[in-house]
Amino acid sequence: MNKQIEKLLEVHQQSFVQHLCQLVNYESTYQNEWQAQQYINMLLTELEMDIDWFEPDVNELMKHEAFVSTRDQFERSPNVIGVWKGEGGGRSLLLNSHIDVVPGGDLRQWKTAPFQAYFDGERVFGRGTTDMKGGTISLLLALKVIKELNVRLKGNLIFQSVVDEECGGAGTLAATLKGYQADAALIPEPTKLKIFPLQQGSLWFRIKVTGRAAHGGTRYDGVSAIDKAYVVIEQLKMLEKRRNEQIHHPLYEHIPIPIPINIGKISGGDWPSMVPDHVIIEGRYGVFFEETIEEAKEVFEQILHPSMFLDPWFIEHPLAVEWFGAQWMPGSINMDHPFLHVIKDTVMKVSGQKAKVEAAPWATDAGVLYQVGHIPTVVYGPGTTELAHYPNESIEVKAMVEAAKVFVHLILRWCEFETDS
Amino acid sequence: MNKQIEKLLEVHQQSFVQHLCQLVNYESTYQNEWQAQQYINMLLTELEMDIDWFEPDVNELMKHEAFVSTRDQFERSPNVIGVWKGEGGGRSLLLNSHIDVVPGGDLRQWKTAPFQAYFDGERVFGRGTTDMKGGTISLLLALKVIKELNVRLKGNLIFQSVVDEECGGAGTLAATLKGYQADAALIPEPTKLKIFPLQQGSLWFRIKVTGRAAHGGTRYDGVSAIDKAYVVIEQLKMLEKRRNEQIHHPLYEHIPIPIPINIGKISGGDWPSMVPDHVIIEGRYGVFFEETIEEAKEVFEQILHPSMFLDPWFIEHPLAVEWFGAQWMPGSINMDHPFLHVIKDTVMKVSGQKAKVEAAPWATDAGVLYQVGHIPTVVYGPGTTELAHYPNESIEVKAMVEAAKVFVHLILRWCEFETDS
Repeated sequence: MNKQIEKLLEVHQQSFVQHLCQLVNYESTYQNEWQAQQYINMLLTELEMDIDWFEPDVNELMKHEAFVSTRDQFERSPNVIGVWKGEGGGRSLLLNSHIDVVPGGDLRQWKTAPFQAYFDGERVFGRGTTDMKGGTISLLLALKVIKELNVRLKGNLIFQSVVDEECGGAGTLAATLKGYQADAALIPEPTKLKIFPLQQGSLWFRIKVTGRAAHGGTRYDGVSAIDKAYVVIEQLKMLEKRRNEQIHHPLYEHIPIPIPINIGKISGGDWPSMVPDHVIIEGRYGVFFEETIEEAKEVFEQILHPSMFLDPWFIEHPLAVEWFGAQWMPGSINMDHPFLHVIKDTVMKVSGQKAKVEAAPWATDAGVLYQVGHIPTVVYGPGTTELAHYPNESIEVKAMVEAAKVFVHLILRWCEFETDS
Repeated sequence: MNKQIEKLLEVHQQSFVQHLCQLVNYESTYQNEWQAQQYINMLLTELEMDIDWFEPDVNELMKHEAFVSTRDQFERSPNVIGVWKGEGGGRSLLLNSHIDVVPGGDLRQWKTAPFQAYFDGERVFGRGTTDMKGGTISLLLALKVIKELNVRLKGNLIFQSVVDEECGGAGTLAATLKGYQADAALIPEPTKLKIFPLQQGSLWFRIKVTGRAAHGGTRYDGVSAIDKAYVVIEQLKMLEKRRNEQIHHPLYEHIPIPIPINIGKISGGDWPSMVPDHVIIEGRYGVFFEETIEEAKEVFEQILHPSMFLDPWFIEHPLAVEWFGAQWMPGSINMDHPFLHVIKDTVMKVSGQKAKVEAAPWATDAGVLYQVGHIPTVVYGPGTTELAHYPNESIEVKAMVEAAKVFVHLILRWCEFETDS
């Protein structure tokens, strides 16, 4: 059967590169997912899956504490789910991919057009190739191969193409709340073919720092909010240091900062000749997989409490801390879970090398599967994070095919199968 | 004659408060000076001055190194100048006021409408009351009194109402280049009735700081431009310290920082979850009255040269320093100049107290008069800087009248006069 799998991968590789290119050409940014999802729908139909095409119901979602999104409706932003019902007796598997991509960004930095896929013989270039249409196509290639092997899976196989991952996971939340369950789940986000059995969560924060305005020529009459913002940043660095010193986990042994606090944006002041009386800092706060979002928020807010500063300015002018925008839940699969063993073993057999297992430095929809669906989930896929969200995003076809091969073997082993003969 | 002056000030006070209110109601911001200048024109005509009404010629201005403006034409932005030709024998005096005001700003912070003057019996409220329509009206009240004294001045008296002071002084530059000259000049900017015989200059700078982007979850793979920006700010603080330590001038004895470097604006980063790869800092750089703009620029650029940082990052990613927007020239009157003696003595006699003499913490059009016109200039006027450019700007009528009284005596003493009797 191994030879047959190799052959089928070889045979279909070309056409699935074409599918990837087609999928990249559909500019499936936030609220524009319709066409790309229709294409996925077509592929799932060809695979003879049972299709569930539905727009998330925002009124239902809003009742759930895990709902975070910048959207208030999902019209024309459907999830599409394909199911192969198993023969019974095996373990079920959920495959989860997101169809949404981030915008193209600064076009001048692109060598090609972000939404006009370009294949140079080795790599496909375009927005979403690595994050994560490449992984999605690897999955679909694997399903195509399994279909042509003429096997019947024992466990259920569910393939989810969801919206809104980049904005906080409302698509996966909607699918999970609709009742999709499985014994294990796999998300082929770009891990460079490493296995990520746990992930940090993250929160976005906004801090408003107050100063006192004055003319720049007598700046000593004012208090610079830029100077005060720096005190706040130092405080956050201390918090980051303290939180990370407490982490002793084998998967974080070689990670310089397991749960970073990133200051991503700063802006303040209105006029070069004025002492700035306001600065806004925005950033991302990493949440450890063993802590809750609420616990993480609490220590953050504590360290920015006026009493925590030596500088009395902050007592008279307390910082305003706001949690805004997206939020991603942390979580992990149990390190002894059989699914983790099976995927490690499969990767080793396919690649001929010991599987690399690391902690995910970012969050995925696995957070929703862990915390809301309580589904043991592993993230493993082709592509590299470093290219995600950047100009000239690309993916290596060789890695996509290797991932597809892992997926074929993984699905057959996990779900088990019967043959016709 | 003193009694007559007192009486005339008393008599005309009310109507000149009305003139001030009218002048405030003309929203003479940048490019909208026409109506306010027409009103000034009317007042100068009533004073039987010879009028010179002209729009600055931008093609002429652009030939001059001191020209800085955000404008490329002055259509409908005229200067208006009134002249009383002297009888001969006295010293000439130039009176200079700007008609342009800064915008109203955040209307929610105003208790009254910025361009609807409100007089509460003591103060007039509205944009431009203190900076500097109040001082202008003090001057015009003084001229009215002198006219009614039926004296003939020996020296020429020139009154200039100029545009574009808030943007760098193109109005005064145009008048100066047109040939207006005098033995001394007075600018009634708001000094709280203190005498400012010298002023710091100022320049606006913009510094672009480069970082290296990375995902916030692996922020250790990036280099934060916000962190690097603070290194730059520290460097500028060091420069400010060094420059100010070198200043030993009696007028700066009680000034905490004679020539400050103000960081007025900061902005950088695009996304909370990304390590910011760019930050822009903008600010105001104080220039000592004894140094040239070029010298000041040079030391600033030197301290930001890559070789001046311990951090090798700046060698690979040099800072981009830009001088932009407005620029105001420093300068001073000679401390032994007779005009300075006369104004000090006049202030003492009128107020009954020793005149307060200080260094101006900000620049005015005096810079143009010093450097381009080579006219010994003093800044002295009613109103307070702290209220300029702010919501609820206002001026005390009592101070305006006191200033007018000083102006009457100053003009009579400096220009000398003949009476009809």
